[in-house]
Amino acid sequence: MAERENTDPEKMEKIVSLCKRKGFIFQSGELYGGLNGCWDYGPLGAELKRNLKDYWWRKNVQERDDILGMDGSILTHQAVLTASGHVGGFSDPMCDCLLTKARLRADQIDPQTGTAYHYTGASHEESGFSVEKPYSVLVTGPNADENKARKTAKQYYAQFLSDKQIAPKKLSLQGESTSEEVDTIQYNPENGSLLTEAREFNLMFQTKMGASSDDNDPNAVAYLRPETAQTIFVQYKNVLDISRVKLPFGIAQIGKAFRNEINPRNFTFRSREFEQMEIEFFCRPEDGLALTEEWLERRLTFYAEIGVPREKLHVLDVPDGERAHYSEKTYDIEYEFPFGIQELEGVAYRGAYDLGKHQEASGKTLEYFDEETKERFIPHVVEPSAGCDRTVLAVICEAYDVEDLTKEGGKKDVRTVMRFKPCVAPIKAAILPLLKNKPELVAKAKEVQALLQPHVNVAYDATAAIGRRYRRQDEVGTPFCITIDFETLGEEGGEDLKDTVTIRHRDSMEQERVKISDLLGWLLPRLA
Amino acid sequence: MAERENTDPEKMEKIVSLCKRKGFIFQSGELYGGLNGCWDYGPLGAELKRNLKDYWWRKNVQERDDILGMDGSILTHQAVLTASGHVGGFSDPMCDCLLTKARLRADQIDPQTGTAYHYTGASHEESGFSVEKPYSVLVTGPNADENKARKTAKQYYAQFLSDKQIAPKKLSLQGESTSEEVDTIQYNPENGSLLTEAREFNLMFQTKMGASSDDNDPNAVAYLRPETAQTIFVQYKNVLDISRVKLPFGIAQIGKAFRNEINPRNFTFRSREFEQMEIEFFCRPEDGLALTEEWLERRLTFYAEIGVPREKLHVLDVPDGERAHYSEKTYDIEYEFPFGIQELEGVAYRGAYDLGKHQEASGKTLEYFDEETKERFIPHVVEPSAGCDRTVLAVICEAYDVEDLTKEGGKKDVRTVMRFKPCVAPIKAAILPLLKNKPELVAKAKEVQALLQPHVNVAYDATAAIGRRYRRQDEVGTPFCITIDFETLGEEGGEDLKDTVTIRHRDSMEQERVKISDLLGWLLPRLA
Repeated sequence: MAERENTDPEKMEKIVSLCKRKGFIFQSGELYGGLNGCWDYGPLGAELKRNLKDYWWRKNVQERDDILGMDGSILTHQAVLTASGHVGGFSDPMCDCLLTKARLRADQIDPQTGTAYHYTGASHEESGFSVEKPYSVLVTGPNADENKARKTAKQYYAQFLSDKQIAPKKLSLQGESTSEEVDTIQYNPENGSLLTEAREFNLMFQTKMGASSDDNDPNAVAYLRPETAQTIFVQYKNVLDISRVKLPFGIAQIGKAFRNEINPRNFTFRSREFEQMEIEFFCRPEDGLALTEEWLERRLTFYAEIGVPREKLHVLDVPDGERAHYSEKTYDIEYEFPFGIQELEGVAYRGAYDLGKHQEASGKTLEYFDEETKERFIPHVVEPSAGCDRTVLAVICEAYDVEDLTKEGGKKDVRTVMRFKPCVAPIKAAILPLLKNKPELVAKAKEVQALLQPHVNVAYDATAAIGRRYRRQDEVGTPFCITIDFETLGEEGGEDLKDTVTIRHRDSMEQERVKISDLLGWLLPRLA
Repeated sequence: MAERENTDPEKMEKIVSLCKRKGFIFQSGELYGGLNGCWDYGPLGAELKRNLKDYWWRKNVQERDDILGMDGSILTHQAVLTASGHVGGFSDPMCDCLLTKARLRADQIDPQTGTAYHYTGASHEESGFSVEKPYSVLVTGPNADENKARKTAKQYYAQFLSDKQIAPKKLSLQGESTSEEVDTIQYNPENGSLLTEAREFNLMFQTKMGASSDDNDPNAVAYLRPETAQTIFVQYKNVLDISRVKLPFGIAQIGKAFRNEINPRNFTFRSREFEQMEIEFFCRPEDGLALTEEWLERRLTFYAEIGVPREKLHVLDVPDGERAHYSEKTYDIEYEFPFGIQELEGVAYRGAYDLGKHQEASGKTLEYFDEETKERFIPHVVEPSAGCDRTVLAVICEAYDVEDLTKEGGKKDVRTVMRFKPCVAPIKAAILPLLKNKPELVAKAKEVQALLQPHVNVAYDATAAIGRRYRRQDEVGTPFCITIDFETLGEEGGEDLKDTVTIRHRDSMEQERVKISDLLGWLLPRLA
């Protein structure tokens, strides 16, 4: 587990900065100070994410006979999430800081032993204001300073009263201080204040739907789905009925899901709004374990194809006791992010749990009828569930490179290059007329652009020196630069080079000449 | 306006039924009785919608140098929607039925004149239960039956108490009835009950974000965006900074938006969760009106390209007083749905309103600096805003056709055919081995499938007689059926027909033979 500590915060900072500077990813609502845990994809990020989603869809839906796609709503009927267990159980234990009202994950705070100083608010009851809970500061460790702690508690308490707008003249603290020994006590490590007892805090975003005038109408509650999976399970029967698929078969979906993460962090990695790419692959019970292994391998291959190589991935065989109770087998596919090794995808064998729960709750049969064996049963399911934004982030982290090109004795020369696989690169080719003030070059460049644009996403750039433009394209990961020069016009290099262009490769920086008439045929196979 | 009444509910019913039967569109949460105003796209619907979005993106982002894409979060900072006016003003006037608690659009109820009978709940105060408002039933018109109305009111009141679980023995209604004349009064046309006075009801979905333990913490409120447009406006400055675009330029976005419609209706047309395809096209103030005209024409062309012809579209030049107050010009593009002529898209000249509001509220400058004229100003904006789900529905309605193929004196022969343009058709080609029990045919068909599948979405179908399979593909709008027959194998028709396939055209039902080696080259240009 030591390797998990192998982080590189400096690299991460540079990546975040490049993402903003080049228009991959912006903070959502940045103009107003930002919305914590939400992100907007800028022009290049939107293309990168589209390319990733399209590639996933092509490989998992279009190129397979046994997987059907769907696209369900985000707003979800509460009965769906009650049956799935999310309404009752999708929660973290949380406690509140008595001072700041900040909410903290109870299971992430170390229990402490020490002495607590309580200030109860007797004098404030006189002022018409009563404090329900004593205000406390914990003193821990052998060198704890009791006087300092008492002083701190007093200050916090004064602040608390001030926030409640108790008049200053009544702030003279007449509450008594009580020193008492406690065994284990939870306190806020940021300010030493006591915490409330832990209670469960549901991670789903709730909203009110419809026009009921009763604010407490339970039927008016809907949720933003916390995973796309449940949308698939509740439509499984419809999909089965309209198609003539036989087991094993899958239903795939790409779409947004939402979780009210207490502590969003690591850029887009842990966010409150995120996109998933999920397959629910239904099968006969006896095939579940073998299919789980198959899907694990298939998914590992996928990541290599989009530029996240096998050697940077870790497969965690989730041990007993850490898997969901209904799962016989779960693999986590993890990637070596600069902030640590973190999960990209789970491949979980979920058994008959979900369909069974929905059959029970809805009272409708979700059984599959096997025409050959004449059996009726609830199919088991294997779920490869990938985080789309996490994968985009892994692709970005993996592509990021700083290359030192300084020649011996020469001036320092360093380039930043995003080594995206062509299949996900936001811009496939940049079209660059050598000079912008030579109309023949510009006209020819526009011709080349018109030739390629209906087929691939290209950029056109006529500003700055050609070397600078190459570097600019390197920084956004454009695999090919196509330069229209004097040879193209037939003004230099002779008849053979007329109507050819220079293609400059991003990674090797090598150049070659290709005929304009061959260009599309040259390019397309290199982008697949 | 008379033509607006020209509806065809029977046709609409058939379309809705086909959409469910063939897996285009399902009700969301159907297993649990459905979630009103929310829809799930099934396998074919998901492909159709993907194709439409891809086509829009290709035409408006990829093929243009002056439009950049983005993809922003759905969860939106409340400051954004306060500045845009949505928090304060995005509302409908609503009143509540005193009996059922149903909420109704006040401006959609005709004011009535008549006599109201009130029952106040004196006896129920005795039972410890007090009724705040009298319960009333309205009698209107010259033939109104006062006794019947009184009886109805009594029944409703009894029901009301029963719902409140007042014990039956206390149900003896001792309240007095009061007949009084009223001038105008609003009552629920469904049950005659009185309505509360109208008040404004905000159409945005609200949710609570973060971990504040204070349920009333105003900073914890976030909204599901009611339009994608605001996400663009608040990132306009970031996009401008990272790119080197000059006016006029656009930012385009496809994404979900949410409105708590009181009365979702007309299938997917008016739903609570929907997807938008929007462009905010920024320009110099003096160019705004001309660009509005340009965009209108461009958008009309787009609809023709995807199979919604110009003659089925109506352009409404929204008159003074009906446009948003900041809009000098707005066109609505409407389509002749079977349920009436309804809006697909608005092309609105919004002036500097949105950016101006965000500049004011954020305190940050959103001005554009024109390098040529050295001016600083807030750009104006022209907004072509299309409803994606509405457009999908228009494409479906327009494609739907029932063709009578009965030959004179022959058996009745009718086919349902979805005449989708190939560019949006969910399945581009179906590959059909003539017989499923002839291994050579199946092997050859699988070869053809492997050839096409990496490039286009194909279906493979080896069940049933060939004629029935053709009709099945007609019903889901597959433009081409590719049949592998004995000629393909060289077993019939001679050497010339070996390794050719039969291509059957959906619309004309004509057939032609194409060499397998030419197939991809034949197909691709026909799908663009």
